[in-house]
Amino acid sequence: MSSFSAVDVIRTKRDGGALSDAQIDWVVDAYTRGAVADEQMSALAMAILLRGMTGAEIARWTDAMIASGSRMDLSSVPRPTVDKHSTGGVGDKITLPLAPLVAACGAAVPQLSGRGLGHTGGTLDKLESIPGWRASVSNAEFLAQLSSVGAVVCAAGDELAPADRKLYALRDVTGTVEAIPLIASSIMSKKLAEGSSALVLDVKVGSGAFMKSVDSARELASTMVQLGADHGVRTVALLTDMSTPLGLTAGNALEVAESVEVLAGGGPADVVSLTLELAREMLAGAGLPDVDPADVLRDGRAMDVWRAMISAQGGDPSAPLPVARESHVVAASASGVLTRLDALAVGNAAWRLGAGRARKEDAVSFGAGVELHAKPGDHVAEGAPLITLHADDPDRFAGALDALDGGYEIGAAMSRVARRLVIDRVA
Amino acid sequence: MSSFSAVDVIRTKRDGGALSDAQIDWVVDAYTRGAVADEQMSALAMAILLRGMTGAEIARWTDAMIASGSRMDLSSVPRPTVDKHSTGGVGDKITLPLAPLVAACGAAVPQLSGRGLGHTGGTLDKLESIPGWRASVSNAEFLAQLSSVGAVVCAAGDELAPADRKLYALRDVTGTVEAIPLIASSIMSKKLAEGSSALVLDVKVGSGAFMKSVDSARELASTMVQLGADHGVRTVALLTDMSTPLGLTAGNALEVAESVEVLAGGGPADVVSLTLELAREMLAGAGLPDVDPADVLRDGRAMDVWRAMISAQGGDPSAPLPVARESHVVAASASGVLTRLDALAVGNAAWRLGAGRARKEDAVSFGAGVELHAKPGDHVAEGAPLITLHADDPDRFAGALDALDGGYEIGAAMSRVARRLVIDRVA
Repeated sequence: MSSFSAVDVIRTKRDGGALSDAQIDWVVDAYTRGAVADEQMSALAMAILLRGMTGAEIARWTDAMIASGSRMDLSSVPRPTVDKHSTGGVGDKITLPLAPLVAACGAAVPQLSGRGLGHTGGTLDKLESIPGWRASVSNAEFLAQLSSVGAVVCAAGDELAPADRKLYALRDVTGTVEAIPLIASSIMSKKLAEGSSALVLDVKVGSGAFMKSVDSARELASTMVQLGADHGVRTVALLTDMSTPLGLTAGNALEVAESVEVLAGGGPADVVSLTLELAREMLAGAGLPDVDPADVLRDGRAMDVWRAMISAQGGDPSAPLPVARESHVVAASASGVLTRLDALAVGNAAWRLGAGRARKEDAVSFGAGVELHAKPGDHVAEGAPLITLHADDPDRFAGALDALDGGYEIGAAMSRVARRLVIDRVA
Repeated sequence: MSSFSAVDVIRTKRDGGALSDAQIDWVVDAYTRGAVADEQMSALAMAILLRGMTGAEIARWTDAMIASGSRMDLSSVPRPTVDKHSTGGVGDKITLPLAPLVAACGAAVPQLSGRGLGHTGGTLDKLESIPGWRASVSNAEFLAQLSSVGAVVCAAGDELAPADRKLYALRDVTGTVEAIPLIASSIMSKKLAEGSSALVLDVKVGSGAFMKSVDSARELASTMVQLGADHGVRTVALLTDMSTPLGLTAGNALEVAESVEVLAGGGPADVVSLTLELAREMLAGAGLPDVDPADVLRDGRAMDVWRAMISAQGGDPSAPLPVARESHVVAASASGVLTRLDALAVGNAAWRLGAGRARKEDAVSFGAGVELHAKPGDHVAEGAPLITLHADDPDRFAGALDALDGGYEIGAAMSRVARRLVIDRVA
C-alpha cells in the first residue's frame, strides 16, 4: 500500500476535493494502526462533515472500514439471510418481536447489535434484563443458532470493522458525529461485514432521533441504500416517525415485557404496525414475499422462535423480569386530549431514571424507565395517571421530572391529523 | 471561569455560529491546561478554518492566547518602542539591518523571534551563524540592552503566549495552518504580549510566501491591523512581493554577510529599498517621522548599533562567518534575460542544502545555502555562473538541483514591467 502524508489527505478534503481511492485506503488503514493520529483524523472528520463526500468516496471509505477487520461468512446457513438496522429512537424495541417473527416466516436474521449511549436504548441492554441471557456468542454458536432457530441477536465481535469502532469513539468527543457520509459508512461497514443478503433500514426522524428533519433522514437513507446496492445487498430504507416514543414503554425490562405482549398477539398498535411493516420488507428482501407475517404473529409461531432464541443464549423466557424498587406517578393536570408527548423528553427521563448510560463503562438499571398511560390523541382525565416513572433510586425522580417538563401538552382537541408512522420508503 | 463542553463549543463553530467570549476564554485555557484534548482542538481548528470567525471572535481568541502567559512590561525603556514582523519568505534577512537601523534612529526595537521551519529561514538561525552569539537572554538583560543599545533580537521565552505554541504545533500536523483567524491571532498574540507601542507587519505574497494571493494577504493584513488597533498598538502592514527571493542569498551565514553589506552602505537594491521602506513605517509608528533612515544607514550609525547589538549577546561582529565545505556552480544554459526565478524553488533548494530544518529538533548548517548571480530582469551570458550552491555535504547538491528544476527561465527579453516590491499598504 502506498504511503501518503496525513496533512495532504486532510488538505485535499479541506479544500473541497475528492479523496482518491488510494488516499482513503491509506488513511483508514493508517488510522486503525495508529500511524495517523487522533488529532489528524478528527480534523479530517470535520472537513468531511463540512465539505461532504461523493458517492464514490463514501463507498470506498466503507470498503476500507470493512477491510480493517474480517467479514462473516453466512454461506453455510440454509435459509435466506436478512437483517434490519434502526438508527435508534425512544422506546424502539422493534428488533425484539421482529427478529423471531421473520425467522418464524422462514428467513435467517443475523443481528449484531450495540449497547445504548445517551437517550436511546440499546437492544443488548434490553435483552440482558432477561435472567441468564448472554450477549456474547462464539462464531460457531452464532452460525449454529442461525441455522436452527433462525435468529441471533448478539454483540458484534472485535474483528468486525475495528476502524469503525475507533472512529466512532473519536467522533463522539469531537463534534463530528453528524456527518452523513460517516454515519452511513459506519452503519453500513458493520452491516455489510456481517454478510447478510438483504437489509432493511429503519431511519428514524424527529425529536427522539438522530436525524431531526425528513430531508436529512432521506439523504442518509439514500446514501445507505446506494451503499447496499453497490455491495450487492438488497437494501430498502423506511423513514419512520420518532417525534413521540414507540409503544408505551422506554426502559430495558419494560420494553421486553411490551415486546412479549406483541408476540402474544397484543401490545400497542404502533409497535405491532411497525413490526409487521418491517417484517414485510425483510421477507421481500429475503425472497419470501408471499408469507404474511400477521398470520405468523397471530398463531404463536413467532413466540415459539422468541422462546427458542432466548433459551439458546442461556436466557429463561419464563422467568419474571426485573422490576424497579420505586415508582412515581405523574397525574394529568387537566382533562382533555394529550396533544404532544415528546420522544426526546421521554428518552432523557428514562436515561436519568437509570435505563441508559452516560459513559460506556456505566451499568444500566434493568427495571428503570418510563411507562406511558396515554399517547398523543388519547383522552386523559384530570388526576388520572399519565406517566409512571420507575427507578431503583428515588433520588432519580427529580431529574426525570425535569426532563419531562414541557415535554407534553394536554389540549381541548388534537389539532393535527393522526401520526404517519412510516413517512417515506427509499429503495 | 465557567466550564463548557468541548463538543458544544466545536458544534457551535461547526454549525456556523459565533463563539461567545466565555466559550473562547474557556476553550483556550482548557486546551493549554490539557483539559481539552488535541483531537478536540484540531476539530475546532478545522471548523474555524472552514467557517471563519468574526472580528470580535478573533480579538477575544487573541486575548485568551495572551492571557495564557505573561505580558512583557517595556515601560522602563526610555525610548519609543516599535517592532516589525514578517510572515516569512525566502532570503528575508530584513530584520538584521532593520533593527539596528531603527534603533540608530532613536527608537527601541524589541524583537522576539523564531526559528525556521521548512523553506523559510529563521532570524535566530541566521544570527547564530555569528561566532559566540546567543539567542537566549534573561528578562533583565533584555530590558537593559533595549535601553542601552536600542535593539534586541532574541528567542521568545516559554511564558509568552504558551497557548499559541501548543496550538501552532497542532495546526502544523492537522492541515489547519491556513486559517486566517488562527494565523492572525497566533502572530498578534505574541506581538501584543511583547508590549511594544507600535508594530509594522511585512505580509509576504507570492510563491515563496505563506499567502499565495494578494487577496488572502490583504485579508490577513487587515485582520492583524484591526487586532493591533483594538489593543491600542499603532499597526501598519505592507504587502510585499515574495515571488522571487529578497536579495542574492538564501542561507544563514550568507544572509548575515549580505546584511552587513547593506549596513556598510552597499548590498542588493531590493534589500536596501525594503529595509528603508519598513524603517520609515516603524519610525512613523514610533513618533519619529522626521528622521531619515537613509542618512543613518549611509553615515555608519546603523552599523555601529549592529556591532553593539551583536556584542551585547556574546557575538563577535568582526569574526569570519562559517563557510560551507563544498560548492557547486549552476551556469546559464543560454544567453538572454533571466525572466523568472521562483522564490519557492530557491527556498526549497536552500533547505535541502542544509540551511533549514525539516523537524524542530534538526540542526542547521550555517554555511549552506544558495547564492544568486542574477535576479529577474538581469542579462545573463551562456556558460556564466547563474547560481552557486553551498553545502557541507556534496550529496545534498542533487536534491537542491531537483528543487531548482523549472524554477527559473532565461528568455529573449523581460515581458513584464519591473517588480513592484511593495504591493499595498494597510493601515
